[in-house]
Amino acid sequence: MKILEQRIKKDGRVLGKDVLKVDSFLNHQVDPELMQAMGEEFATIFSDEKIDKIVTVESSGIAPAVFAGLALHVPVVFARKNKSLTLPENVWTADVYSFTKQTTNHIMIDHRFLSAAENILIIDDFLANGQAVEGLLKIANDANANVVGVGVVIEKTFQKGRQILDERGVRVESLARIKGFENDEVIFL
Amino acid sequence: MKILEQRIKKDGRVLGKDVLKVDSFLNHQVDPELMQAMGEEFATIFSDEKIDKIVTVESSGIAPAVFAGLALHVPVVFARKNKSLTLPENVWTADVYSFTKQTTNHIMIDHRFLSAAENILIIDDFLANGQAVEGLLKIANDANANVVGVGVVIEKTFQKGRQILDERGVRVESLARIKGFENDEVIFL
Repeated sequence: MKILEQRIKKDGRVLGKDVLKVDSFLNHQVDPELMQAMGEEFATIFSDEKIDKIVTVESSGIAPAVFAGLALHVPVVFARKNKSLTLPENVWTADVYSFTKQTTNHIMIDHRFLSAAENILIIDDFLANGQAVEGLLKIANDANANVVGVGVVIEKTFQKGRQILDERGVRVESLARIKGFENDEVIFL
Repeated sequence: MKILEQRIKKDGRVLGKDVLKVDSFLNHQVDPELMQAMGEEFATIFSDEKIDKIVTVESSGIAPAVFAGLALHVPVVFARKNKSLTLPENVWTADVYSFTKQTTNHIMIDHRFLSAAENILIIDDFLANGQAVEGLLKIANDANANVVGVGVVIEKTFQKGRQILDERGVRVESLARIKGFENDEVIFL
């Protein structure tokens, strides 16, 4: 997606050898017009699929997911990170390890909002090591929901997330694919 | 806002004497069409104000805030809840106590995304005891930003948030105002 790549080139900040910060337009400050364009792009890409619901994880997935939901005319569910020690009843859960923060989040979705045979599209802001998407796939599997695909805003193709999802036969579509960083510049695939 | 009140009557669940759960359309499962209508309503209500930026708190404020941002053509910043023990540098911070969860969250906004003399509109999903909004007001004050108003999706007028904000002279506009619950039914003001 050209306007996204241009925005990453303009406002993204490369930290070290594998971190890209996009907090000026995606996951701290948010550009609503860009989110809307991304939502419409996801709807176009997945227009050949039957989609009943979009599923994401709080917080950074919410903005792209709600605009994809608007474009596809379907509800959006965001998995919540459970901070309390006691788990609520009647929730699907998964553990998601964050390599960046080196912490494990327990994510959960209420049984009422994910049902057997529902066709879901997973949306997330980044695909790096694939932990968040794997957590959502586990939840979808537990709920007997049908995952039609995964829509990612920014994919880092040099990390292992894509390979894991390819091996599982999951359709993955990314709006921007980054193959690496050179001299603090982003190199797109 | 009529369609919001109707939705609360239809899908809201009253728990105990002061809790309203709206997790089927606002803060776990999200209805994108309703969010869009709410965003446009906020834009109409605050159309007489100069607004440079919308500020909210993750996660439940994000969906209404991004649609308000789209309607007003301004960026949205969501304050992040800091889970790590070490505070990042160059952030505005506030402590927000949650009466519901009985925990204190440390919220923060990067200095780069909130500047002196910026005119900001605060958006949040609920106004109950006003803790989250007070945290954002503290951050805005520290940054010397100018708060033009607070837009709330659901206000519980019987809790003390509204009074606190009125006493501070802050303009508060709510899309639905609830004066109480009777026999598990929502009574609007």
